Amino acid sequence: MSEPTKPATAGSDKPSVLIVGAGAIGSFYGAILKRAGCPVSVVMRSEYDAVVANGIQIESELGDLSYHPDHVYRDGDSPAAAPDYLILCVKVLPGVDRAALIRPWLGDKTRIVLIENGLDIEREIAEAYPQNPIISCLAFIGVSRVGPGQVHHNSYGRLVMGQFPEGVGEDCQTLAGLFDDGGIKVKLTETVVGERWKKCLWNTPFNPLSVLAGGADTDTILDSEGGEDLIRALTEEVIQVAEADGYPMDRDIIDKQIAGTRKMTAYKNSMALDYLNGRPIELDAVLGNVVAIAEQHGVAVPHLNTMLVTLRMRELLKQREAN
Amino acid sequence: MSEPTKPATAGSDKPSVLIVGAGAIGSFYGAILKRAGCPVSVVMRSEYDAVVANGIQIESELGDLSYHPDHVYRDGDSPAAAPDYLILCVKVLPGVDRAALIRPWLGDKTRIVLIENGLDIEREIAEAYPQNPIISCLAFIGVSRVGPGQVHHNSYGRLVMGQFPEGVGEDCQTLAGLFDDGGIKVKLTETVVGERWKKCLWNTPFNPLSVLAGGADTDTILDSEGGEDLIRALTEEVIQVAEADGYPMDRDIIDKQIAGTRKMTAYKNSMALDYLNGRPIELDAVLGNVVAIAEQHGVAVPHLNTMLVTLRMRELLKQREAN
Repeated sequence: MSEPTKPATAGSDKPSVLIVGAGAIGSFYGAILKRAGCPVSVVMRSEYDAVVANGIQIESELGDLSYHPDHVYRDGDSPAAAPDYLILCVKVLPGVDRAALIRPWLGDKTRIVLIENGLDIEREIAEAYPQNPIISCLAFIGVSRVGPGQVHHNSYGRLVMGQFPEGVGEDCQTLAGLFDDGGIKVKLTETVVGERWKKCLWNTPFNPLSVLAGGADTDTILDSEGGEDLIRALTEEVIQVAEADGYPMDRDIIDKQIAGTRKMTAYKNSMALDYLNGRPIELDAVLGNVVAIAEQHGVAVPHLNTMLVTLRMRELLKQREAN
Repeated sequence: MSEPTKPATAGSDKPSVLIVGAGAIGSFYGAILKRAGCPVSVVMRSEYDAVVANGIQIESELGDLSYHPDHVYRDGDSPAAAPDYLILCVKVLPGVDRAALIRPWLGDKTRIVLIENGLDIEREIAEAYPQNPIISCLAFIGVSRVGPGQVHHNSYGRLVMGQFPEGVGEDCQTLAGLFDDGGIKVKLTETVVGERWKKCLWNTPFNPLSVLAGGADTDTILDSEGGEDLIRALTEEVIQVAEADGYPMDRDIIDKQIAGTRKMTAYKNSMALDYLNGRPIELDAVLGNVVAIAEQHGVAVPHLNTMLVTLRMRELLKQREAN
């Protein structure tokens, strides 16, 4: 692995960073890397004017993380220089061509960093840019947008990070060190896809179920007649698909997850909140891709499939009613 | 079988009828029996005043079916005489004690007629009144309430009728003859439970699915990616439960149903309309009882169960949010 290329912004010897999709999560991790001394630029869409005027404002338990990005770009701009690390934080949605979205900003050596939810979300990027290293990250964080360019960091922030499809390169170590300098712990993993499967063991059952149940919180899901058994059946199906895909799981995890979820204060997960706020949900990244991988391996997933198809019906109905 | 007892209302030699739950369906079939010459009384709840003042007004393709009931009762009244036929048309919902609801109006010889949706809905009535004959009916009708005491009859009206748990007694034949006199065809069946299973082959998959999908019409359900396959899987599960319960089904029925549904103009079924109008849905009668019978027989119904539990979550969430 080569060292990061010459920084794009003068005045810093740290790697340059560009955040594409500077919503709550992108803005937050940009702030952390800014604290670590990196030049951090952003590509904005709707909130461009606010961020040009006032920078990005972040209230956090870590302190005031507000910052002015080194460059604020918008679609159609040309970058001052290609970044060392391009961090992609957009939602994974049908109709959002993530590969096209990052094309204008990539250099030959730019590392592509994905801080995004779900399973099998790296492939379309890896296929589009086979020469660029891909660093895949899972964020464990509570953060929300509270206004244009304004973010509230509620809790946590830990990242799990690895090279895609596997391994931990020097690029990962450099980036992890920078996050650490900025105050965020990173767990490096040789098998980031396995880590994505582990996160799916919770997200894939709970997130879509909460939407189908009308935006239900965790307690309501588990307290309903048959609710815990359904969560168990769904999780068991995810485990079987993960195993067929080459990622064996500890079966105790089902009991542990349910006990852990019961212990937490009832809460509505991010997909439930997206649904309740009329935003699109990451259905394929969290559920559809799991069912597709199950089909590839011939694993029967009737419970997962019922959720998936029902949610697709709901989306089709919404589209038709909008026309 | 004895002949119907002396009519409760003077001036008619036809059997007396009392409708409990005179919503759209009850009001309509009351009108038919009134046309056949029966004295027809009703027990009203919220629409008592309107019906006392103006009778029941029904626009229908059969003509103007409006009528003044012989008696208009409300809860707490005492009947002038026990009816020959008590027709129960309330929705089958948790928290509605249907046996208690009819207790004040029953005589020893009153035949209890159920014109209600779903499966296994006779049992609680049969257990409460083992001496009273029970006539179980399925209505194939499009009818809706358009105002207090006002009903619009859109289409159809055919009844399937049999004694519960099986057979066709003289009571059934008398009642079927009266409906026929009033202009409504009745198909008598020796196995009304089997007929309920047949109706469930469509209702049990389509009705709850339309609710889960946000009030989807039949076309949206079948056009969605994976939609037809899910309907097939759900129907197959209902068939397996029906067979375990002693009612073998013709497997061709799945293809026929889907072809038939595709041919129809897209429409929202009654459960979808209940959901969209904020009314309670008959979840147990249409789905919960099917899953309960599956469990009794050890039949796996993962697709049906996912729908059931998810809809229960939704109801629990609604209850909790209302408190």
